[in-house]
Amino acid sequence: MTMPLNETHDPSLTSWVASANAADTDFPIQNLPFAVFRRRGSAEALRVGVAIGEQVLDLTAAVQAGVFDGAAQRAAQAACADRLNALMALGAPAWSALRLALSRLLRTGAAAQARLAGALVPQAEAAYALPARIGDYTDFYIGIHHATAVGKQFRPDNPLLPNYKWVPIGYHGRASSIVVGGTPVRRPNGQTKGPADEQPAFGPSRRMDYELELGFLVGPGNALGEPIPIARAEQHLFGAALFNDWSARDIQPWEYQPLGPFLSKNFGSTLAPWVVTMEALAPFRAPFAHPAGDPAPLPYLDCPANRSQGGLDVHLEVWLQSARMREAGQAPLRLSHGNMREAAYWTAAQLVAHHTAGGCNLNPGDLLGSGTLSGPGAGQNGSLLELTRGGTEPIALPSGESRGFLADGDTVELRAWCERAGARRIGFGACSGTVLPAPAVAAA
Amino acid sequence: MTMPLNETHDPSLTSWVASANAADTDFPIQNLPFAVFRRRGSAEALRVGVAIGEQVLDLTAAVQAGVFDGAAQRAAQAACADRLNALMALGAPAWSALRLALSRLLRTGAAAQARLAGALVPQAEAAYALPARIGDYTDFYIGIHHATAVGKQFRPDNPLLPNYKWVPIGYHGRASSIVVGGTPVRRPNGQTKGPADEQPAFGPSRRMDYELELGFLVGPGNALGEPIPIARAEQHLFGAALFNDWSARDIQPWEYQPLGPFLSKNFGSTLAPWVVTMEALAPFRAPFAHPAGDPAPLPYLDCPANRSQGGLDVHLEVWLQSARMREAGQAPLRLSHGNMREAAYWTAAQLVAHHTAGGCNLNPGDLLGSGTLSGPGAGQNGSLLELTRGGTEPIALPSGESRGFLADGDTVELRAWCERAGARRIGFGACSGTVLPAPAVAAA
Repeated sequence: MTMPLNETHDPSLTSWVASANAADTDFPIQNLPFAVFRRRGSAEALRVGVAIGEQVLDLTAAVQAGVFDGAAQRAAQAACADRLNALMALGAPAWSALRLALSRLLRTGAAAQARLAGALVPQAEAAYALPARIGDYTDFYIGIHHATAVGKQFRPDNPLLPNYKWVPIGYHGRASSIVVGGTPVRRPNGQTKGPADEQPAFGPSRRMDYELELGFLVGPGNALGEPIPIARAEQHLFGAALFNDWSARDIQPWEYQPLGPFLSKNFGSTLAPWVVTMEALAPFRAPFAHPAGDPAPLPYLDCPANRSQGGLDVHLEVWLQSARMREAGQAPLRLSHGNMREAAYWTAAQLVAHHTAGGCNLNPGDLLGSGTLSGPGAGQNGSLLELTRGGTEPIALPSGESRGFLADGDTVELRAWCERAGARRIGFGACSGTVLPAPAVAAA
Repeated sequence: MTMPLNETHDPSLTSWVASANAADTDFPIQNLPFAVFRRRGSAEALRVGVAIGEQVLDLTAAVQAGVFDGAAQRAAQAACADRLNALMALGAPAWSALRLALSRLLRTGAAAQARLAGALVPQAEAAYALPARIGDYTDFYIGIHHATAVGKQFRPDNPLLPNYKWVPIGYHGRASSIVVGGTPVRRPNGQTKGPADEQPAFGPSRRMDYELELGFLVGPGNALGEPIPIARAEQHLFGAALFNDWSARDIQPWEYQPLGPFLSKNFGSTLAPWVVTMEALAPFRAPFAHPAGDPAPLPYLDCPANRSQGGLDVHLEVWLQSARMREAGQAPLRLSHGNMREAAYWTAAQLVAHHTAGGCNLNPGDLLGSGTLSGPGAGQNGSLLELTRGGTEPIALPSGESRGFLADGDTVELRAWCERAGARRIGFGACSGTVLPAPAVAAA
């Protein structure tokens, strides 16, 4: 089901791009994630790039340099575009051929080094755009510790609903308001009503929060009415990227019954620029099982490969820097750290199988958010709602400020990486966003 | 706020297309709705058309015939496309100019008759496609009698939740699985669990239903973070079309907590081919107010024009024909009839203002579904769930069959029209779909 290991995963490989060989880089030659970018401040067309160390390889320029042939050439040509959708639609054999070619071209000693030097752009000079046209965005809820902790606050007597261990709970999100990492996000106005309030009020959210998620980007889609069986589900995933599903915790409880979150979520969501391919993640797959005593997944959510390697070993972190910290030159503060394996109750393959089980069609570039990934322990929470227990236990910042929820000017940065013995560490880059003040409430 | 009446609304106007002058046509010259079509069985490109009687005026052919000039020419050129999005993006002055030109070109005695005769295609020979690329689809819940009746079945003790009369409840739907009227829709498989079941089972839905809705299609959008004030909201609406939000009533109760409906809705939704413009609807606007004693809308949901003419006087009907009825040559049976004015607790302008109040951006072609439109009386229900009280009071069909919910082979057809003294009756055409059997459950 998952991609097999091959020469591109060899941990001893190095690149002629020296920064890719640094021990702590997110982007060694074993990673090769994709983004869409242009040179900052330029009016040039958006283009697909591949990260290598501190550089981006401009794939359009690489194609023009004539370094590809065969299946890799066909895949690279699909990436001569302003989004990744056409490459995503080609499927795993094409992605693999391109990855192998890129790995060989960027290796120490590659003959193409001279021809490719002009196709490299420093990441410091790149401005990113969304990696794909996201036709539809679905957010799941696979973080069982998050679901339990949040459930306790919304429904103290009934934190984890009876369907949670049977249904990979998900809902449709707003695709239009997804922005690429680095884009500021405006605090929303909305209706809120506390338990003691006689009637709701309209104004800026006072409980704006982040949610630490991993987003999966769909490769080839399926026809309407034709479900994707779980054994083939991962063939429909191109890769994964960090994702911040900003949330207004005071708007949500008043609006969410009976049809789910709406304005509490759709004011903005941030997708990281870099998409790490499922093939790059192959060394970090792990067995997957529900805890003993929990129900076995129904047959449409179960297959041998999902049990043997459905898990994904990804370290996750959230960092915060307030405007005052930035002004004082204080480094961001790490708010939490965790691992997807401990957080996730369902696998990516199960999400694809469930999403399409009723016939719903996925398209290349669609985004499947994991839902907030919180670990079981203290300091492993993927949202302030959990970390500060609904704002009642604020976090002290090095600036002397404290935070129950986010303040205007706060920058939230998500980070993630994979490492294990015998494999080269790879990272997801950062997914960051700064909170802007709410727009003025316009007179009617 | 709404479009003013002008010469295009004059009820005495007739067309040189004779079928447009029939008393019972949906498409007199006062209507001029838009669709996307090609000649059935042809491989020609999709094109935008305007209904006139039993014909479609091919706008691309009309432009080629050189019948437009000025602002109408610019708008018509934007409609020389495979979807309406570019025309939708132009805004109301452009739409108005095109409507006025079309009205004058199609009137009895118009000099252009000879030049336009070749641009007419009989509707009987047209195959339709979705009128717009729908980037995002939102479904609201403005039918208060529906919300109350359904609430009674899901939450007998608490049918109408406390937020209903304050918040125009809505949620994000699945855009990819929206199909154009006439496309068959597959019954979904899914998890269901009755109250007496020990654990859920996976299989075909046994409670498949329709939902009678009106969908509003967005014209010019708004930038992320910049709400649309209610006084300008209708300028962002291009038109309205019938919409069937097919639903699996047995999948929904098990999956919908806490994040809302998902697989119970996303297996398919049907949008009618014909989009009636907001300008065509201008004669059928009506005052709007919440019932005495209900809360006044919050300021961001209120403005004088919304009070004086936010209402929309639209007659609505649902018809059913089973496979056996079709084989026996029995006409469809009318299941229900009602009027949007009696059904709707919120106006289209309030939906736009609420949707964007937190900063969410709308784009041209986005779809805002009204939610099920049920009247207060018997026989005015917009779904079988209500009509048959959850299947407990099945409807007798002329074939001797009965229906609690939909059976495979059933064709559901929604119809709607506007009429009042002093105006020409206009209609929405039909929105139909036939239920196909569920796909086989694939082995993992």
